[in-house]
Amino acid sequence: MYVLIAYDVSTKTPSGQRRLRRVAKACLDYGQRVQNSVFECKVDPAQLVDLKTRLLSIINVDTDSIRIYNLGSNWQRRVEHHGAKESYDVDGTLMV
Amino acid sequence: MYVLIAYDVSTKTPSGQRRLRRVAKACLDYGQRVQNSVFECKVDPAQLVDLKTRLLSIINVDTDSIRIYNLGSNWQRRVEHHGAKESYDVDGTLMV
Repeated sequence: MYVLIAYDVSTKTPSGQRRLRRVAKACLDYGQRVQNSVFECKVDPAQLVDLKTRLLSIINVDTDSIRIYNLGSNWQRRVEHHGAKESYDVDGTLMV
Repeated sequence: MYVLIAYDVSTKTPSGQRRLRRVAKACLDYGQRVQNSVFECKVDPAQLVDLKTRLLSIINVDTDSIRIYNLGSNWQRRVEHHGAKESYDVDGTLMV
């Protein structure tokens, strides 16, 4: 399944910047960064559980938030990109 | 339909900060901010065209990007929120 992960953290502190890097690294193991704090990941249900567990171990639940959207199987038809940076193909570089 | 709008801009410059405020204002006319640069909007097809036209008139296409995801009708089942800030109910405060 394809999921969109949006991460919100204050990166004004070094610890926040570190959490953002760690969240990005976790998401990049499953997909691609499409915007500064938005990732599209291709995961099976077990991988999604692993990814969520990892993300929840990284974030500060008092200050950070993560939203995970299940994009379904026809995600390519569900997304439009405008402006800078080309849209990524999450299947393009993903090692599965 | 429910759409997710993710906006990416460098807010290091005053003009970028101004664009972000204008994008947020446009999105808030149709829905809610759920993260710093992520909005969930409830729109009909005509409103979506209006919103897109407005957003594209605001952004700097060389530096900014907007991604619009169609969340479908069962969007509430498609999203999970973790950490700070409660999940918003886009129907809760929207004036339709």
